Amino acid sequence: MDVIDIVVAKRESRELTDEQIDWLIPAYTGGVVADEQMSALAMAILLNGMTRREISRWTDAMIRTGIRMDFSALDRPTSDKHSTGGVGDKITLPLAPLVASCGAAVPQLSGRGLGHTGGTLDKLESIPGWRAQLSEREMLDVLREAGAVVCAAGEGLAPADKKLYALRDVTGTVESIPLIASSIMSKKIAEGTGALVLDVKVGTGAFMKDLTKARELAETMVSLGTDHGVKTVALLTDMDTPLGLTAGNALEVRESVEVLAGGGPADVVELTVALAREMLANAGITGVDPAENLGNGKAMDAWRRMIAAQGGDPDAVLPVAREQHVITADRSGTLTRLDALQVGVAAWRLGAGRARKEDPVQAGAGVEMHAKPGDAVTAGQPLLTLHTDTPERFAPAIESLGGAWDIEQGNDEYVARQLLLDRVG
Amino acid sequence: MDVIDIVVAKRESRELTDEQIDWLIPAYTGGVVADEQMSALAMAILLNGMTRREISRWTDAMIRTGIRMDFSALDRPTSDKHSTGGVGDKITLPLAPLVASCGAAVPQLSGRGLGHTGGTLDKLESIPGWRAQLSEREMLDVLREAGAVVCAAGEGLAPADKKLYALRDVTGTVESIPLIASSIMSKKIAEGTGALVLDVKVGTGAFMKDLTKARELAETMVSLGTDHGVKTVALLTDMDTPLGLTAGNALEVRESVEVLAGGGPADVVELTVALAREMLANAGITGVDPAENLGNGKAMDAWRRMIAAQGGDPDAVLPVAREQHVITADRSGTLTRLDALQVGVAAWRLGAGRARKEDPVQAGAGVEMHAKPGDAVTAGQPLLTLHTDTPERFAPAIESLGGAWDIEQGNDEYVARQLLLDRVG
Repeated sequence: MDVIDIVVAKRESRELTDEQIDWLIPAYTGGVVADEQMSALAMAILLNGMTRREISRWTDAMIRTGIRMDFSALDRPTSDKHSTGGVGDKITLPLAPLVASCGAAVPQLSGRGLGHTGGTLDKLESIPGWRAQLSEREMLDVLREAGAVVCAAGEGLAPADKKLYALRDVTGTVESIPLIASSIMSKKIAEGTGALVLDVKVGTGAFMKDLTKARELAETMVSLGTDHGVKTVALLTDMDTPLGLTAGNALEVRESVEVLAGGGPADVVELTVALAREMLANAGITGVDPAENLGNGKAMDAWRRMIAAQGGDPDAVLPVAREQHVITADRSGTLTRLDALQVGVAAWRLGAGRARKEDPVQAGAGVEMHAKPGDAVTAGQPLLTLHTDTPERFAPAIESLGGAWDIEQGNDEYVARQLLLDRVG
Repeated sequence: MDVIDIVVAKRESRELTDEQIDWLIPAYTGGVVADEQMSALAMAILLNGMTRREISRWTDAMIRTGIRMDFSALDRPTSDKHSTGGVGDKITLPLAPLVASCGAAVPQLSGRGLGHTGGTLDKLESIPGWRAQLSEREMLDVLREAGAVVCAAGEGLAPADKKLYALRDVTGTVESIPLIASSIMSKKIAEGTGALVLDVKVGTGAFMKDLTKARELAETMVSLGTDHGVKTVALLTDMDTPLGLTAGNALEVRESVEVLAGGGPADVVELTVALAREMLANAGITGVDPAENLGNGKAMDAWRRMIAAQGGDPDAVLPVAREQHVITADRSGTLTRLDALQVGVAAWRLGAGRARKEDPVQAGAGVEMHAKPGDAVTAGQPLLTLHTDTPERFAPAIESLGGAWDIEQGNDEYVARQLLLDRVG
């Protein structure tokens, strides 16, 4: 088998054979195929695409480079969620305990933030004592005790994907639907969940800027999951506007706790409940209304058990940034736009995110929003509060917010974009 | 400047700016841009192309990573030739001394064979004592003494190209017209020749299999040369059939000496004279007929001076392979096809070429042809003689020749394909 034949085949838009894919992925993981060969192939895949059959085989091959987890010993069905990443997307925090409180087990392997999108693990680490690194045994223990676990993926899960993702990140080959789909799904299938709901974000703050591409990604992932025996559906949801009223780490934990207490911003509640219904339906659990469990304290109980089981103190006071800067509305009217990407970049620059994988994040940093599109605002009222421990970060954050919102007068009939855009599966 | 922006720009078919190219090439040569980033870009260039402006700037940037040679101290005009590579292409051997005998200086930097195409330096090294490695000073001395020099390019000439070519070779990104053209022309322009004739091969034994692509490559190179003040023309010539009656190292030297003595195969003579006329015209030399100098011994004298000036003995007996195997015609008729690629692969497998850069070659190995397309052959007559020092190589060589020729009965009016297909410039 010769890697150059494989690169040339894809360069010439030919379909790769099963034998080629089965040889290539472990050869790359083991260093027989070099990074420079794989990046040339990744570019050819990005430009010439892969068929459903190729993507499925590629995903299989990536799964087989590592371990597969097994939760069949649990006495309840597993159901997981994956979001393609957005700004203010704290949904996993209320969702995992909510679904656990309704009777499913939620084994959620999460990541860290890179760039303008936040990472679930970074958010939860703002809770004093909480640990992201669990062994597979500890993970199972937390699942049994709390019904939900949110932790870092171990080294053993699809190591091919880990290596390939790092390569794509530095070679301009991230934005390929076949490669994004196989990357996400190889980890989720190896994780061993029985059911999966995908939250595919669409808009300025998301990977996918338009609905057509997002739908293609969703369809690719749903068919990959289905082919591998995982009941999979996808919701396409808006990411032109940040989710909720906060983007940051401790800020988002605080908002998530409000949702678990029965309050919180309407969009966060709407999406959490919609995803919970899909996760429960996929796991075959009927007759429980997740919206009720947000009101009656059951979801909050599951949250407290989950945080405590991973070493966190659910009653601890969350970190607050040392410095605040308030941005006020310069005119009165209706807020008709608040750009997700720009808010995400501002939160990132304030210290909530990291520029390189090895950078630390600030627990208290981020952006607090005092109005969302559709809200009436008055000149001089606070629009955004910026939080950071390091005040020299205010200037670059403010710069990134230039033109990030519109306030229109005489547009009282403005209707904000729908949150739930489509469903696939 | 960020390499990922550059990769993404070309991925999205945008034109690279001068600033991007000027930064990229030295950054890659110096290791700031990694191989895996450059190979992703090379694939994007292969698939999305480059404009003439980009190719010209890219070539400039590659030249500037190294030294430029200067032959302006010579008392005669310089003129060089470059072939894109073929089977049995020994033309440089008679051509360089022939053009020198007509009054131009020929500074010919040549390469070694890789794969099925032979290398000029490998061929000349079958002459006892002959040295390919010369310093720039020695090169100038040989040019003054013999009028022609054929030697290896030093390390200092376009080092960016050296690094990029090695990368393309292992990443499936060789067959890109912008990258081939800038690779060839950066070295030829840095070499400092005043005039250049390109022999662009077309056919099974060449890089370019079809005339349209070959013409595009020729036009790209001619305009690159012209833009950089080098008088450049290109001939498109046939490579469906091997050139001459030999493919190998010492075998081709012997055939070249026959041409210099006024004999040799008609196609080798035709192409040598055609290229010589172009080289002389480009150098502004008129009133000399190169065909005459093949007949009157002047070209042979220049050859002897050139070989001797580089340490070789022009009277030495050339190496002969230890073993021969004759393949005979299985029927009578007209030979209507003899495939260049298959003959080239056979010569390579017999030991005339190398699989990896560091492999040695056999001086005596190769294929001797006893008929060419258009010739009448009789059943049982020798068609090919295979030469090697290592008889275990006969079987793989014979295998590569399966179906390499056609002998047709009742096709007496067969006319072989023209050798000179087109001219650009």
